[in-house]
Amino acid sequence: MGIITLLTDFGTEDEYVGLMKGVILSINPAALIVDITHHIEPQDIIEAAYTINSSYGYFPQGTVHLTVVDPGVGGKRAIIALQTMGHLFLAPDNGVLTLLFDKPGEGRIIRVNNADYFLKSISPTFHGRDKIAPTGAYLTKGVKPSELGPEINWTDVVRLADMGCRISDTGELMGKIVSIDHFGNLITNIDSKDLVDYCQKRRDGNPRIRVGKRSIRGLVKTYESAKRQTALALIGSRGYLEVAVNGGSAKQYFNVNQGDVVRVVI
Amino acid sequence: MGIITLLTDFGTEDEYVGLMKGVILSINPAALIVDITHHIEPQDIIEAAYTINSSYGYFPQGTVHLTVVDPGVGGKRAIIALQTMGHLFLAPDNGVLTLLFDKPGEGRIIRVNNADYFLKSISPTFHGRDKIAPTGAYLTKGVKPSELGPEINWTDVVRLADMGCRISDTGELMGKIVSIDHFGNLITNIDSKDLVDYCQKRRDGNPRIRVGKRSIRGLVKTYESAKRQTALALIGSRGYLEVAVNGGSAKQYFNVNQGDVVRVVI
Amino acid sequence: MGIITLLTDFGTEDEYVGLMKGVILSINPAALIVDITHHIEPQDIIEAAYTINSSYGYFPQGTVHLTVVDPGVGGKRAIIALQTMGHLFLAPDNGVLTLLFDKPGEGRIIRVNNADYFLKSISPTFHGRDKIAPTGAYLTKGVKPSELGPEINWTDVVRLADMGCRISDTGELMGKIVSIDHFGNLITNIDSKDLVDYCQKRRDGNPRIRVGKRSIRGLVKTYESAKRQTALALIGSRGYLEVAVNGGSAKQYFNVNQGDVVRVVI
Repeated sequence: MGIITLLTDFGTEDEYVGLMKGVILSINPAALIVDITHHIEPQDIIEAAYTINSSYGYFPQGTVHLTVVDPGVGGKRAIIALQTMGHLFLAPDNGVLTLLFDKPGEGRIIRVNNADYFLKSISPTFHGRDKIAPTGAYLTKGVKPSELGPEINWTDVVRLADMGCRISDTGELMGKIVSIDHFGNLITNIDSKDLVDYCQKRRDGNPRIRVGKRSIRGLVKTYESAKRQTALALIGSRGYLEVAVNGGSAKQYFNVNQGDVVRVVI
Repeated sequence: MGIITLLTDFGTEDEYVGLMKGVILSINPAALIVDITHHIEPQDIIEAAYTINSSYGYFPQGTVHLTVVDPGVGGKRAIIALQTMGHLFLAPDNGVLTLLFDKPGEGRIIRVNNADYFLKSISPTFHGRDKIAPTGAYLTKGVKPSELGPEINWTDVVRLADMGCRISDTGELMGKIVSIDHFGNLITNIDSKDLVDYCQKRRDGNPRIRVGKRSIRGLVKTYESAKRQTALALIGSRGYLEVAVNGGSAKQYFNVNQGDVVRVVI
Repeated sequence: MGIITLLTDFGTEDEYVGLMKGVILSINPAALIVDITHHIEPQDIIEAAYTINSSYGYFPQGTVHLTVVDPGVGGKRAIIALQTMGHLFLAPDNGVLTLLFDKPGEGRIIRVNNADYFLKSISPTFHGRDKIAPTGAYLTKGVKPSELGPEINWTDVVRLADMGCRISDTGELMGKIVSIDHFGNLITNIDSKDLVDYCQKRRDGNPRIRVGKRSIRGLVKTYESAKRQTALALIGSRGYLEVAVNGGSAKQYFNVNQGDVVRVVI
């Protein structure tokens, strides 16, 4: 198929993303390159981890996903290839693939170190272009992950801690904002299953959601379900709890930032 | 041909556009996807209406255009398919296709409700990904619009009112700013034909254009025709009256916003 | 091959880039279009000149590059086609290709004036869409540069002056910031060769780099080599001296702008 996706924090102001595409097409002119986004907050590995986990499933089996949020570029961190769920992922070994490590079914991880699949000249500040893009391009041409380097153990990779939501000592379901989208919607790490479990155990389908100093009562289905300029909570298109303002920006309304806490209280 | 364009207000910060592309390529890996823009002002149906109308003609006959500015997503508004001028358009039925409804030649409108062409799981907040993208992908594979749902009447769709310019009681030609572009140029809804008609009837080829509290005398051909940092008016690349500042931003110079009035006075 | 790249200052808020793609695909549906970037600072020909020079080499031989930063659009400036290094470039004759003019090997320049390869209707404000995009599309279909217009002399094109760095009267190596990237890194026009020559002649491998009122001692290899929030200098991925802040923005740290001076002192 030859589909290859790009997910980075490079922005689009510079030539960086274009060069990765040039490198890929120089190796495989039949590759079909798709941008997921290049606007992960600079060096926000957590945001990238949630974004790739919510995205890969919408692409065909066999897609190669390059996830390049890489504050440690040029240092000691390795590059890894992850094979799972019928997809292939290339990324720095900094935890950005944490949410993909424990998927059901077979999978494996390779430490990518075969320089045959890198560019000849390597800049220590742009492995996305010089190592990850060319390796990804070769994968779309049928090179096997096992040719990229040695297989390593699932315990030998960096994993981000505290990724999910949790029940606090006072019995609240505590999560945080992992992305604030273009519309100012607050996307949390509280997935619908955790939310339903929490409410069912407490036999209350009408939780209170606290964000900053304000709160919302209950969940609705669509943005239009609340009055204009009114805050609402719903299960967003990622399948996670999301806080929005109909016709407005929840970021402004609640005056919060990525990483801030969201609590569900009954 | 399999060309499919995307025009949305999603921005590019998030995975939303990337997921639409993943969905399309999962159904038709040979589809050729082109972004028109994803930076329509959030929920600005009027801006999107002018943009798609100025854009589709530069694409080959048979192109499928997805126009997703959809504040009512998940609510009662329908999704429609419009066949006109040799192109196919998919959009929410909220008026965003208003300027395409009365084109010459044959055309028809379908209310899109055939779930065979939707994703299996539908988020109430992201029909772009779950209904419009897959339906569009099937159209590029040769599915006929008539298979998407029942044909409806041209009077059964939502139309935006007051789209064109008009002559005021005091005899001025009144329009408004429908887009402010990357350079700060003010793009109006006064098309060159209306402007020429207005001037010819009044036998004056040198109208005064009023924007905010300032005005410009006459039209020029190019941005360079005025002195640096000087305001000018011309017929822009859309074929509409446009107000610019040579080497500067008309938005800053005139201190105006999208939706503000522009008057032509003789 | 049919690869065609786009490098402009159009931004992505508007339909402009999308229309260029529509025009290209209308002429050659098999063209493979790659965005290098559309976020050159408005009308910054110098930034564009460095960006295209640092980018083209990552694309396959035979690629057609459209470089459209064009403040004089619709005026007297010509459009030129440059054939060099196995690549083809189309651009306004305003100096944006200056750094590509003196490459080794054969090359030639054409003044593009064959209207057979333009759109039928030409807007005086959008030659990117109406002249450059269609001409580029025909080049990807095998039209020869010689068919586009007359060959002209290397001395007959506009060249930007003062492009490189220079030694000041007081013996400093003086360059300037030509791009500030998404991360706030300051990318200069001092290439690694000039820097090495300068230091070798002075037998000092540990130069001081002055930016604004601050300075940095010595060069490192990677962003991580300095402490968090600390300024550093390195040879960036373009092969030029770059000033950065580990985990932060050098633009904010030094409070500088594109065009500002950077000095290397021994």
